[in-house]
Amino acid sequence: MDLNEKIKFFINKGFFYESQSIYGSRSGFYDYGSLGTLLKRRYENLWRIYFGKLFDNIYEIQPSEIMHKNTFIASRHLELFNDPIVECKNGHRFRADKLIEEKLNIKAESLTIEEMNKIFDEEKVVCPECGSKLSNVKLFNLMFPIYVGPVYDSFLILEELKRKYGFLIKKYRKINEKELNYIIKNYLKNKNLYSINLNNEKYIFDENKEIIIKIKDNEYYVYLENIEIKEEDINYIEILNNAKEIKIDFNLSELYNLIKDYIELKNNEMFLRPETAQGPYVNFPIEIIINRYRLPLGLYVIGKAFRNEISPRNALLRMREFTQAELQIFFDYYNNQFENEFEFYKDKYINVLLVKDRDKKLPYIEKSLEEIYNETKIDKFYLYFLYKVFEFYINILKIPKERIRFYQLADNEKSFYNMYHFDIELYLDEIGWTEVGGIHFRVLRFNRDIINKVDEEIKKDVENLFIGNEIYAGYDLWNHFILSKDRRFILTRPNGSKFIPVELELSFGVDRNVFSLLLTNYDGEILRLQDYLSPIQIAVFPLLENNENMVKVAKEIYNKLRKRFDVYYDDSGRIGVRYKRQDEIGTYYCITVDDQTLKDNTVTVRFRDTKEQIRININDLEKFFEEKFDIWKIL
Amino acid sequence: MDLNEKIKFFINKGFFYESQSIYGSRSGFYDYGSLGTLLKRRYENLWRIYFGKLFDNIYEIQPSEIMHKNTFIASRHLELFNDPIVECKNGHRFRADKLIEEKLNIKAESLTIEEMNKIFDEEKVVCPECGSKLSNVKLFNLMFPIYVGPVYDSFLILEELKRKYGFLIKKYRKINEKELNYIIKNYLKNKNLYSINLNNEKYIFDENKEIIIKIKDNEYYVYLENIEIKEEDINYIEILNNAKEIKIDFNLSELYNLIKDYIELKNNEMFLRPETAQGPYVNFPIEIIINRYRLPLGLYVIGKAFRNEISPRNALLRMREFTQAELQIFFDYYNNQFENEFEFYKDKYINVLLVKDRDKKLPYIEKSLEEIYNETKIDKFYLYFLYKVFEFYINILKIPKERIRFYQLADNEKSFYNMYHFDIELYLDEIGWTEVGGIHFRVLRFNRDIINKVDEEIKKDVENLFIGNEIYAGYDLWNHFILSKDRRFILTRPNGSKFIPVELELSFGVDRNVFSLLLTNYDGEILRLQDYLSPIQIAVFPLLENNENMVKVAKEIYNKLRKRFDVYYDDSGRIGVRYKRQDEIGTYYCITVDDQTLKDNTVTVRFRDTKEQIRININDLEKFFEEKFDIWKIL
Repeated sequence: MDLNEKIKFFINKGFFYESQSIYGSRSGFYDYGSLGTLLKRRYENLWRIYFGKLFDNIYEIQPSEIMHKNTFIASRHLELFNDPIVECKNGHRFRADKLIEEKLNIKAESLTIEEMNKIFDEEKVVCPECGSKLSNVKLFNLMFPIYVGPVYDSFLILEELKRKYGFLIKKYRKINEKELNYIIKNYLKNKNLYSINLNNEKYIFDENKEIIIKIKDNEYYVYLENIEIKEEDINYIEILNNAKEIKIDFNLSELYNLIKDYIELKNNEMFLRPETAQGPYVNFPIEIIINRYRLPLGLYVIGKAFRNEISPRNALLRMREFTQAELQIFFDYYNNQFENEFEFYKDKYINVLLVKDRDKKLPYIEKSLEEIYNETKIDKFYLYFLYKVFEFYINILKIPKERIRFYQLADNEKSFYNMYHFDIELYLDEIGWTEVGGIHFRVLRFNRDIINKVDEEIKKDVENLFIGNEIYAGYDLWNHFILSKDRRFILTRPNGSKFIPVELELSFGVDRNVFSLLLTNYDGEILRLQDYLSPIQIAVFPLLENNENMVKVAKEIYNKLRKRFDVYYDDSGRIGVRYKRQDEIGTYYCITVDDQTLKDNTVTVRFRDTKEQIRININDLEKFFEEKFDIWKIL
Repeated sequence: MDLNEKIKFFINKGFFYESQSIYGSRSGFYDYGSLGTLLKRRYENLWRIYFGKLFDNIYEIQPSEIMHKNTFIASRHLELFNDPIVECKNGHRFRADKLIEEKLNIKAESLTIEEMNKIFDEEKVVCPECGSKLSNVKLFNLMFPIYVGPVYDSFLILEELKRKYGFLIKKYRKINEKELNYIIKNYLKNKNLYSINLNNEKYIFDENKEIIIKIKDNEYYVYLENIEIKEEDINYIEILNNAKEIKIDFNLSELYNLIKDYIELKNNEMFLRPETAQGPYVNFPIEIIINRYRLPLGLYVIGKAFRNEISPRNALLRMREFTQAELQIFFDYYNNQFENEFEFYKDKYINVLLVKDRDKKLPYIEKSLEEIYNETKIDKFYLYFLYKVFEFYINILKIPKERIRFYQLADNEKSFYNMYHFDIELYLDEIGWTEVGGIHFRVLRFNRDIINKVDEEIKKDVENLFIGNEIYAGYDLWNHFILSKDRRFILTRPNGSKFIPVELELSFGVDRNVFSLLLTNYDGEILRLQDYLSPIQIAVFPLLENNENMVKVAKEIYNKLRKRFDVYYDDSGRIGVRYKRQDEIGTYYCITVDDQTLKDNTVTVRFRDTKEQIRININDLEKFFEEKFDIWKIL
């Protein structure tokens, strides 16, 4: 099965589907259906239990999705979270870097705007849709702005402008004089006509602007809807000369209101968060107090993030609205408490592709944490968390070991705020290595030059942060401190010295993970998810649908189990078909009530992957499944 | 404790706090902190288990928060989901109906715009902030629009306009001639000056528009920042006469681009959903197929909704971003399957305030379902679900019975699409009766007139929906069918006849419920939540913080329990203080390791409300708490 066939299968089964397809979906939006929601929740709960308990002092918080503009000034999203686009005169728009990569096979992601413009110029790249010239590269910010409060009058004014001048941009059709005569005769002859002169064009229209004639260089054009044009030999053109001229009356008071409202709009601008991470960062000063100044502190968010992606694709892989699970770990760079953990795990192996090993052309190399440490000198706490992430995929999600790797980003590839940056990648047969998360050490290092760059008001505070001649501080905490000047970002060590914690971020795309679980576990017949991940946990069947006693007992079992588990009852079709129906959506256990049940109160429990069947007494079923689904046991 | 004191307490403890207070919060946005998130999740999980299992065939789905414009055309949110506002010339804005209610003590919610305008006129209501005249009432739509794709050029054009003409709306200060002379001498004398004439005003400025002089009726005004003005006797005014006049150069090509981009903007307009309900409605055609056409079908969403409220207030009670839990129940109006359930519960009592009983001046009357049925003839299925909601509050959330009522809305009060509409209200000492949810029978009834009002294409389909001379159909399913013409909204009965299901909505404001739980359970010392609702489930203390053995055992217990439960370890301060700290955040069980523990391996477990202490062997703790927190047992 290829990618599209699999996606079609998942859509048909209700794991996910295009959002609001009844109205023609907008790309980049998917809804989770009944089965997908169960799977997504199971993933989130496992994540919560595993990462939320990684060490003591980790808390989940739920910050707002709509966030303050200053947050993204401090984080520099407003300035830097852009995609480069080009457009042609017909309005076709493209990601400039992707277009260069596709057309010219040049790595373009880290090119500057000037470099891209130069390439477009030299290579004479034109619009792939219509062949016309492309504009210079512009930057397009990926955040969705939100305007809070009753500030929409700009749009009302624009509506008014559109009403008055919208005719300028309608699509006109060229006509010959005979057609013009026909139109005048049939539609304009007895109406009051008006005209507007504009550059070298003349527009003539009736009061309602239902029909507009444009005259340019002695040629005639017409705008009309649902009107059939025939030809007419009698000349009516003189009628057009009687049109009453209107002066363009767009005036400064309209402009004044437009600008006034626009400024108010901008003052009330907020943004849908493009990552969940900023919530924990701006709330750090509050949560560190609530949690009594203990470090390391973990704050995590499982929730929506929004990006105005120019080219969403691959179903759940690149969406405009998506779910992230991100854990932010805050600690003192000079006193990190994960040394023991590293010692404990240093002989464990993980799959990594280090920058220095890329020339070996292997997808990854198995290395122990200690080996990586010796080769790279990457801080030990970072390697420890790499291992814990690896363990989550191998032991909890049961991703086959050869399908996961940590891909180290080179200095010119990684986000500028990351000191260390490894992508978590899974190998999907249909797509190849796919980023499903990342481990980001978001930290800044300053020397004494910084003192002269900060506001007078906080100079003293910054001076106090030095240890020797350097400061290590979390990228976001530092920037929020500089902008807000909120001194609660600064903590005090037992010896009295001051610091701003550093940030280690474990970031996961929930949808990408769910999608990868579906792709890697579905083999075309069976969805081989672990039992604790399967959407439907148990199915219950009477062997024969028309045997009243069997149906009665099966329904009793169903009604008892469904309170506590996610159970599906099915009595239609042959038993083999019913098993198959459950296999393909991943149900691990099927209970069947048969003849023997009616004699000895036992049922068969069938295991999805082995097809093995065992008999269990009805009274023991609840306990049996409680044990099976006790996810705490696997952790 | 009054409302504000309680809110302050919850904020200090980290249940919730104003969103991004480091930047000065925008009203209407709150974040859940570490404790609040735990409580909110417990509420949601209880809701999910209770309402998600109310009957067989209920599923959770997760639709996108950003939704298609057509969805809100069909649901009529774009047309009707408005608040009336008035504004004064200084830009102060108010909810028109609230202003009338406050100023004149007149019920205004259901007044028309014309009626409100008349009242403002006759009563000469002026701006409460500055006393100036108020505008006519305008309607303000409460939805947040979202523009998808790279469509922001309108804003860039507006930026350009603002750069060119922004001076028009700066704040000018009136000055005398001597001050004018001082300004010219010190700031304008050696610069190139420009002027613009506008109506009867003249603006004179330097190239950078840093200083602008406005002359009107022979009086002088100035715009300037951070400049101290003194007086000067020498006359420099002639210099102003040399300013070079600029013609206003806003031209039609700017206008053309503005309108073009605006139209593209509008074409790409989507909306943040103002309620979760539309997700299940638009996805009904998909989910009914996936779930094999079984009715009744329940689809629920627990998720965010967004409203651009003009006056957010009372912390979590009226926010701009909030969480809803809404269950949509779909069934055939002519074959609803809840008759038996009604029969089973008909002698049960609930607290209702029927419209007909309002004159009795009681907050509510206890009536059995059967009594209500006999008095009102409200459909039995509806009354059955009223009871199930009642049970949730009484038995699961343990809201004291006298604090809950169902408030029936009169015909002129209820939403126009509801045939029946009861609010779920809780009594909060600090606020009074407060709406925390609603039970809405969203249904339309048509006679044969409707056939001539629908498109030709679906006339036949609509004709087929009649039973006798009437159609009952869910308000939203009907409207989405009419707009999308998607025939999957129409189902077939076993006898071959056709129908569109009706919709019963059980709608809950999650934040309002969480806030109510906090307010009603916190008595100033103890947060008396049920043990299965308390954020922290167990606290663990060594009796003496400096007794190494006690600390060691306590930490062992803590580390064992924290994997499975939400546990807090505390060894600082006197034991009484530590108990108090847990009492006020609602922790039900406190474990203390004391002298005896070191002898016989038992600890004390203290119960929050009774202060009773029992001794339990350490090895039995896990099992003890598993039983205590087994929420399935209470359902």
